Amino acid sequence: MKQGESDLPPASPSQVVSPQTVNRLSLYLRCLRRLQELRIRRISSLEMARRFDLSATQIRKDLAQFGEFGIRGVGYDVDQLTEHLCTLLGLDRRHRVVIVGVGNLGRALSQYLGFNSGSFQVVAGVDIDPRQVGRPAGGFRIGHSADLAEIVSDSKAEIGVLTVPAEAAQENYDALVAAGIRGVLNFTRARLQSVPEVPVKDVDLRIHLEEMAFFLRE
Amino acid sequence: MKQGESDLPPASPSQVVSPQTVNRLSLYLRCLRRLQELRIRRISSLEMARRFDLSATQIRKDLAQFGEFGIRGVGYDVDQLTEHLCTLLGLDRRHRVVIVGVGNLGRALSQYLGFNSGSFQVVAGVDIDPRQVGRPAGGFRIGHSADLAEIVSDSKAEIGVLTVPAEAAQENYDALVAAGIRGVLNFTRARLQSVPEVPVKDVDLRIHLEEMAFFLRE
Repeated sequence: MKQGESDLPPASPSQVVSPQTVNRLSLYLRCLRRLQELRIRRISSLEMARRFDLSATQIRKDLAQFGEFGIRGVGYDVDQLTEHLCTLLGLDRRHRVVIVGVGNLGRALSQYLGFNSGSFQVVAGVDIDPRQVGRPAGGFRIGHSADLAEIVSDSKAEIGVLTVPAEAAQENYDALVAAGIRGVLNFTRARLQSVPEVPVKDVDLRIHLEEMAFFLRE
Repeated sequence: MKQGESDLPPASPSQVVSPQTVNRLSLYLRCLRRLQELRIRRISSLEMARRFDLSATQIRKDLAQFGEFGIRGVGYDVDQLTEHLCTLLGLDRRHRVVIVGVGNLGRALSQYLGFNSGSFQVVAGVDIDPRQVGRPAGGFRIGHSADLAEIVSDSKAEIGVLTVPAEAAQENYDALVAAGIRGVLNFTRARLQSVPEVPVKDVDLRIHLEEMAFFLRE
């Protein structure tokens, strides 16, 4: 990579990166994929900011944390930057996902294309309901929650998706930690007591409705 | 409200606000609700930034766009700011939601607590599958997609949630527009041709997994 648009010296990869920065990197990646669809090969931070309603300074700062990507006056190579961001975000390899609680939401997520393409694949699901156990969901049969440790170990799942009732969230998080899972997406409303080695990301789908509501104000 | 921490003069509410700003306002609201749970009554932009890993300057700039909320050296009144943000975001009234496509994801969302509490309520759902029509889902019976216009009118739904297969997304968006819906959340991977009067917000649940993947890098 050539000398770039960077305002800041590159930081070591081990430096602490805030969840907000990761959020933005993920957003940039989405924008770049859109540019690839449109067959745009080069873009400046300014043009990217204009097109996707972002801040050019923020783009340059965020990317500069991880190296020097753009060429001053020429901009970013879309394909190269896409590849770099994929690597940065850990998306250059497949992550295996286990769904804990295969009700409507768990079942929907186990079949959701975004959870089963590119860097992610749902490889297992468990439920406590005997009527669910043994039924197919996505590409696997639902196991019993009591067998979680074995299922995680056999399926090599790294990410646990919690779609159980809120009151069962903590015990299932604890079980995922004991089973050796590395990170948890929490779709419940429960606030989990977590250990640093197994980070939790809370997902609140209401936020999408809230953003919509703003644009519907009278 | 007293003279504030604002760096910028307040803008008129009619000014164009970017989706990214709305995103952040929604995030601030979430932080403030957390502070309310913790019974914290006052907070400075600096302390709020530190606690939730945000930028204090950004908080002040974002809020200053809409008026002057904080008191210099004292900070924000948590309850007051929460109320103001709710009003700003259009969350001070109930929004009615119709689910278009009541498969696993549509059914899950129709029962999801965040879609049925506070400012939102799922009031109707439609599907094209005759086996689904007439079945209960959440607090209503599923109607037929052919009756969408009448169902939207009768239920006074304002927001449409698209959870149909991607290839059916555009025709269902068009039908929602014709039925008088005011905004659409698109859970499909389709890129919709939309009209400015009926904005679309694309929801890609993969983003939550991508953020998790970053923290699992070796």
